[in-house]
Amino acid sequence: MDGLGGIQHPELKKTELEIARHDHLDALASRSECGFHHPVDIGITPGSGPAHLGIFGYDPTEYEIGRGLLDSLGVDFEFQKNDLAARGNFATSNSDGIITDRRAGRIASDASAKLCRLLDGVEIDGVKVFVLPVKEHRFAVVFRPIKDGIKLAGALSDSDPQKEGLKNLPVKALVADAGFAASVANKFIAYADEKLADAHPANSVLLRGFANMIDIPPFTDVFGMRALCIAIYPMYKGLSRLVGMDVAKGCDTIISEFETLKKNYAGYDFFFIHIKNTDSAGEDGDFSRKVKAIEDVDLCIPGLLELNPDVLVVTGDHSTPCAMKSHSWHPVPLMIYSKNARYNPDIKRFTEREFIKGTLGQIPAQSIMTLAMSSAQKLAKFGA
Amino acid sequence: MDGLGGIQHPELKKTELEIARHDHLDALASRSECGFHHPVDIGITPGSGPAHLGIFGYDPTEYEIGRGLLDSLGVDFEFQKNDLAARGNFATSNSDGIITDRRAGRIASDASAKLCRLLDGVEIDGVKVFVLPVKEHRFAVVFRPIKDGIKLAGALSDSDPQKEGLKNLPVKALVADAGFAASVANKFIAYADEKLADAHPANSVLLRGFANMIDIPPFTDVFGMRALCIAIYPMYKGLSRLVGMDVAKGCDTIISEFETLKKNYAGYDFFFIHIKNTDSAGEDGDFSRKVKAIEDVDLCIPGLLELNPDVLVVTGDHSTPCAMKSHSWHPVPLMIYSKNARYNPDIKRFTEREFIKGTLGQIPAQSIMTLAMSSAQKLAKFGA
Repeated sequence: MDGLGGIQHPELKKTELEIARHDHLDALASRSECGFHHPVDIGITPGSGPAHLGIFGYDPTEYEIGRGLLDSLGVDFEFQKNDLAARGNFATSNSDGIITDRRAGRIASDASAKLCRLLDGVEIDGVKVFVLPVKEHRFAVVFRPIKDGIKLAGALSDSDPQKEGLKNLPVKALVADAGFAASVANKFIAYADEKLADAHPANSVLLRGFANMIDIPPFTDVFGMRALCIAIYPMYKGLSRLVGMDVAKGCDTIISEFETLKKNYAGYDFFFIHIKNTDSAGEDGDFSRKVKAIEDVDLCIPGLLELNPDVLVVTGDHSTPCAMKSHSWHPVPLMIYSKNARYNPDIKRFTEREFIKGTLGQIPAQSIMTLAMSSAQKLAKFGA
Repeated sequence: MDGLGGIQHPELKKTELEIARHDHLDALASRSECGFHHPVDIGITPGSGPAHLGIFGYDPTEYEIGRGLLDSLGVDFEFQKNDLAARGNFATSNSDGIITDRRAGRIASDASAKLCRLLDGVEIDGVKVFVLPVKEHRFAVVFRPIKDGIKLAGALSDSDPQKEGLKNLPVKALVADAGFAASVANKFIAYADEKLADAHPANSVLLRGFANMIDIPPFTDVFGMRALCIAIYPMYKGLSRLVGMDVAKGCDTIISEFETLKKNYAGYDFFFIHIKNTDSAGEDGDFSRKVKAIEDVDLCIPGLLELNPDVLVVTGDHSTPCAMKSHSWHPVPLMIYSKNARYNPDIKRFTEREFIKGTLGQIPAQSIMTLAMSSAQKLAKFGA
């Protein structure tokens, strides 16, 4: 549950988990290992990228996901390790090249996708350029070397001037060996502006957030499990694909996510089920919607338990307290259920306050996968 | 509160915090993040230097404060980065150069200060020597290079033989490049002994604890805050000055410390208020005096809260249990109060026993500043 943990509501003096009714989770908590995890480190508020890498067992300070990559991850696209990604906007420019609208009047997604197809696939100096629709005026660009010996360094400045009334900026190399990548990016912008000359209001492109792929050992190799991501939102699918998970198609509700789990249960060893609503409600400061999202998930727990998993981990990637309307640094509630759990039967509820009594204490996010694997008795002893 | 934490009194079976009455701190605890910190590491008893560096957010194993430097810090003196400091004693020697009294009969501070002035300011081989009165027979020496290219390595042996009946020892270089510093120190000792020939019983000087300045990033830069230290004892002012804090003048009681806070509240972003009595009472094994010191601080809490701070951290630099009459390794009670706190309302008192139920658990001292900054919403997200 994305953004699971909270802080006390200023008037109710209770957290979202304390107000929500979740009998099934409560029953599990009294026979599970409970506690908290720190996604990155004590006191550090994580973005979605590092937070997910942490719960997937990676050190988020070792593997950094650039903004351009993170956004591009939401697109259904098979990245390759030498790819360079960036975020793009269709924009409006006047005859002097001045940007008059950074979002091209937020053109419709259909029209935008059509323009993407117009630009997609061009080759520039041995680099193939993929132009992938995202939503409205937003798209992703992926630069892929298709000739040997070509490297595209991602340390590039934005072309997007960030406000109207200015010209598109030339992309600049921020390190010595990024000159070639900068030149390709600038040639692509020139090419796009020419192709879009008659496409007013979308007659210009702005690029920002250039980022290289990260070279990360696949989850499937690290843990030796066939893994399936079940998510609704594109970015989380992309994050999971990035670490080598398969991604289930066609989920659009929490119920359909758990149905997808059931359908695919025999085909995989590990499932990551991502629930977005808890976080979006937290970001909106909508306390009762976050409560409802937690309750919705709780209703799916009995069906999940019928599948008889070796291990069930229930947690979030970070806390998103409604009172703060943002991600926060607060340790994230964590429950690990298995037949090998050392539990505290005094825990009566799945809440932050009750979990203080848990057998896990406070651990780094990276330890979750280790504990899950051990709980499933899939790890050998360390040393003789 | 220096030395805040304790252990149970052998007969009362309660700690100092459990016996003390501190209603204001208790009320805060039930709506604050509570727990413990380890100043250096689990099981390690820290000195004052490392303990304070830890709570100021520095790794005390990375930045070491030599004894000579720590003692000199108490003197109101502007250290420079190439300075070499040492602790000094006026001593009595006989005609054979044998030390007959290592403390020169504990001469009065006035008389001692006069002798310091006699020696202060001499130049030896391009090094200026500052001689700074401390108390009674004790003084600090600072060697400062005033010609280019001179370096004073601090790896030097003591001249102080540590017992009577022996001669002043020659200062020796403990590493190859400390030869020049040793020679300057020995020349200074010879110079002093000559100048003091008629100053019996203070006719000799003993030097020990040579230490270089530490090169530490200023607190004001690290955290981007204007910081004021409010303390009574010189050493804590010196420690704060060392990390770049301003130091308030003229505090001599706990009440005056909190008045100083009020007066300066608009001029700074961060305040470090140091309470000495808790530690001195602990060191003396005076249980009721430590209880009283805690109660005195508690009475100042309402006035502090009227200032409406974003974040209030109440903790110690280390534990000083009265039953041990010394610093100890026990984790130090820690309370972080802010509107963004995730608290445990089950906590009824500001005590070691109650804090076990806190939301913070046990954390390294270095994380305190991170949590305080996050609680004030002064830190950006990590990653996208």
